[in-house]
Amino acid sequence: MNLFLENVSKYVSLTPEEEHILLGLMHSLTVKSKTVLLKQGQIAKETYFVTKGILRSYTLDDHGVERIVSFASPQWFISDMYSLHAEAPGNLYIDAIVDSEVLVIKKEDQEKMYDLVPKMERFFRILIEKNVVANQQRMLDNLTLTAETRYQKFCKKHPDLIHCLPQKQVASYIGVTPEFFSKMKSNWIKKIAN
Amino acid sequence: MNLFLENVSKYVSLTPEEEHILLGLMHSLTVKSKTVLLKQGQIAKETYFVTKGILRSYTLDDHGVERIVSFASPQWFISDMYSLHAEAPGNLYIDAIVDSEVLVIKKEDQEKMYDLVPKMERFFRILIEKNVVANQQRMLDNLTLTAETRYQKFCKKHPDLIHCLPQKQVASYIGVTPEFFSKMKSNWIKKIAN
Repeated sequence: MNLFLENVSKYVSLTPEEEHILLGLMHSLTVKSKTVLLKQGQIAKETYFVTKGILRSYTLDDHGVERIVSFASPQWFISDMYSLHAEAPGNLYIDAIVDSEVLVIKKEDQEKMYDLVPKMERFFRILIEKNVVANQQRMLDNLTLTAETRYQKFCKKHPDLIHCLPQKQVASYIGVTPEFFSKMKSNWIKKIAN
Repeated sequence: MNLFLENVSKYVSLTPEEEHILLGLMHSLTVKSKTVLLKQGQIAKETYFVTKGILRSYTLDDHGVERIVSFASPQWFISDMYSLHAEAPGNLYIDAIVDSEVLVIKKEDQEKMYDLVPKMERFFRILIEKNVVANQQRMLDNLTLTAETRYQKFCKKHPDLIHCLPQKQVASYIGVTPEFFSKMKSNWIKKIAN
């Protein structure tokens, strides 16, 4: 079954006709590794639903260092939600970490979805609520948890990613330097082994 | 006209029957000044729509200093969205700054709204999108704008509030000490007068 429809069916029941309408409002795109889909300062006009590979969003801090905001593996959405809804230049880059495939939903087609298949209001309402919760949780985690506990949470949340992501990208997501990350991981493995 | 229905009608058209259903799913509450509706560590179970007065949400920083997250005057919603949707203990206090009146929407009644009046999916979807945009914008403003510019933006956004809020609360929202705020304001007034 189409991965997108499978995802939607977790929250709302669609008729075959509604499914057909939705599929007509998005198109698939092959995204080679390192291809940039959105740059800082641009206005986001699309949301991506990953069907293969891994995308990420990141921002550059004051020292030009990459800070990874999110990873998206198959069945995850990724976009600059602020830029998309505010229709203002965003702060995020979005690119592919490995050769990937996505379904592209243009903003105007997302609006059409709401008109043609009103059930999609519920789907995207729940999706945004989940996004708000995840962002707030991550902010709290950064303030209250050790890097080690944050890494353990990351492993639980993205078990499919830990073996295919470069260590420095995981370190950036956790919010530590690659050197600290490497040391932390080897200490952790020693602890488990004892 | 009921303030809540007026607000909803900006985004969706309701029939008289639907309006009747919505009004049956909330109740009004008089909230005396300083009454606390939600405490840090509690799980939020309600959303408040202000019909009179001013409510605020705030958190305590590591030094026990109040950091105001948002003000809500008539026609604004206020809740701990993270706690409400994650069903986890939240980080916010919500209280009334002056004698106020609110419409209380319990979480389970909000779910009923979606089932009985599906148009409310659109209303709350748009509301959450606006909330995401406002939070992100405020975070960017805190990182990039001077306190003076942030104050000017606040005056534009809440023209109804600037004359009824204690200065120290506006200072807390802007993210400066009351002393700095007072100095900044008097410098600003001098600048305008010259």
